[in-house]
Amino acid sequence: MTDVKEEPVRQRLLAEATRLFAERGFEGTSVQEVVAAAGVTKGAMYHYFDSKDDLLHEIYARVLRMQMDRLTQIADGPGTLKERLHKAAADVVETTTANLDDSKIFFRSMHLLAPETQKTVRAERRRYHERFRDLVAEGQRTGVFTDKVPAELVVDYFFGSVHHLGTWFHADGPLTGAQVGRHFADLLLASLGAGDAGE
Amino acid sequence: MTDVKEEPVRQRLLAEATRLFAERGFEGTSVQEVVAAAGVTKGAMYHYFDSKDDLLHEIYARVLRMQMDRLTQIADGPGTLKERLHKAAADVVETTTANLDDSKIFFRSMHLLAPETQKTVRAERRRYHERFRDLVAEGQRTGVFTDKVPAELVVDYFFGSVHHLGTWFHADGPLTGAQVGRHFADLLLASLGAGDAGE
Repeated sequence: MTDVKEEPVRQRLLAEATRLFAERGFEGTSVQEVVAAAGVTKGAMYHYFDSKDDLLHEIYARVLRMQMDRLTQIADGPGTLKERLHKAAADVVETTTANLDDSKIFFRSMHLLAPETQKTVRAERRRYHERFRDLVAEGQRTGVFTDKVPAELVVDYFFGSVHHLGTWFHADGPLTGAQVGRHFADLLLASLGAGDAGE
Repeated sequence: MTDVKEEPVRQRLLAEATRLFAERGFEGTSVQEVVAAAGVTKGAMYHYFDSKDDLLHEIYARVLRMQMDRLTQIADGPGTLKERLHKAAADVVETTTANLDDSKIFFRSMHLLAPETQKTVRAERRRYHERFRDLVAEGQRTGVFTDKVPAELVVDYFFGSVHHLGTWFHADGPLTGAQVGRHFADLLLASLGAGDAGE
């Protein structure tokens, strides 16, 4: 992910940490190796990050922040509820496939983070899921969607598929992230009895 | 999971390995600690398992074998295609929730296994997914289901949700594994344009 407001040193540290965690594992990588690869001093790193835990957390947190911004824009934007839910679902699939290494590395090593940091991440992700769930719940309340399955469970079902993309999606595979996104959004809408609303 | 044909020593080794891997991590647990906890000698362990890798593999492989047996019985059993797919989908959710630690430990540490072992597991899981996909594809071919989304992608979508159960499902939560299974199966069938076929 590229964040234009992000400072170059900070960005380089995150990029090198991502690469090293992917190659050697989170446990197998030292802070010294990250700073050496980024060509900065330890002091410079500690200006931006408190610890190795903090680096791992931030690798995922910045993707999540970007996705939350986009979800808010889509949810509060123009279009019918069906269109907005379809767009939000396709978008989170596409942005996840575009930042697949970040999510993969994070989910693989999340259990190694300090309990407090794990709690923070869960709370951040929870906010994302709740915003998404509100769209489903609104459609169920107004009769646009069937309410046979609780909105919370619909969201767990959908995000299982999103978090699982890292195990099978490949950038050079037969489908692009955008195509998978449209298919998954179609499946979500159809499972809510709404047919294809993304047209 | 309980396999009646499994020998007691083998079963005890797997149970203690599962408990220790969950508590201390796969990397943080030694073979010596597993045999000590199971109250057997290293020689006895090596009679059943080639290595620590082999123990981790088997923790998941026996769940997968059991699920494959059940899927085969359901797929080849009585009922309409809709009923069989609904039953198969609900079943894999229920058996996964009933063996949640096994899957969780495995998915968390799978990347630490030797490449050959990872390849074996992927091939075993692939066979399961293909059998499941065949049910979806049969329904699409015969017009029972919509074929808007490729069967392969429908299966990736569904199993993302199944593999993700470990991150949110709790045995003491508001819904039982069987209830979640029925809801997920309903969502799958509805996403294929088939409404509730599980009645």
